[in-house]
Amino acid sequence: MEVKCKIWIEEDGKIFGKGPYELLKAVEKTGSLSRAAKSMDMSYNKAFHLLKDIEKRLGYKLIETQTGGKSGGGSTVTNAGKDMVKRYEKLIKLSEDTISKLFQEIFLET
Amino acid sequence: MEVKCKIWIEEDGKIFGKGPYELLKAVEKTGSLSRAAKSMDMSYNKAFHLLKDIEKRLGYKLIETQTGGKSGGGSTVTNAGKDMVKRYEKLIKLSEDTISKLFQEIFLET
Repeated sequence: MEVKCKIWIEEDGKIFGKGPYELLKAVEKTGSLSRAAKSMDMSYNKAFHLLKDIEKRLGYKLIETQTGGKSGGGSTVTNAGKDMVKRYEKLIKLSEDTISKLFQEIFLET
Repeated sequence: MEVKCKIWIEEDGKIFGKGPYELLKAVEKTGSLSRAAKSMDMSYNKAFHLLKDIEKRLGYKLIETQTGGKSGGGSTVTNAGKDMVKRYEKLIKLSEDTISKLFQEIFLET
């Protein structure tokens, strides 16, 4: 037996969780929202609106989109977005560690 | 902003989580699987198969059903079932406390 968990942040409903986190990580990695969406089997449209909705509710931008230019455009994660990714990652990591330890103590050792 | 979580136990797929936990609590409270199912807006059939499937995978009974008799039958939670309820409750309580504390530290205080 093993324990699993899902952790997300709410403010008048779900605001940030695993989906947006993975999408931002993929934007960081690929430098493009469309490539990021594709890597998650998500439509560009869905990914775009997902992030726009979160940005609206958080009150700040998570990604910046460049159009055209030498590199042909693309998207980068803003500093605020990187900060959110970092904090969420830390929350998940420490929470999962604790839950696994508690599960071990409560279910497997007694 | 607040943090939310969902915690469940797996063994070759999901085995026990909030749904079965609440169903067993309702059986304890009502003394009947059909009343317990009704209180959760679940069909008797769904509740019955949910528990039977878990029992099969755990290898022990979670509820005992009495038919007929003076009290007209009903269901009670077995000692093993009560133990599972107690452990899951403890896991959830301690995990939620920790996650809230981590969220506070990581998102609200820094």
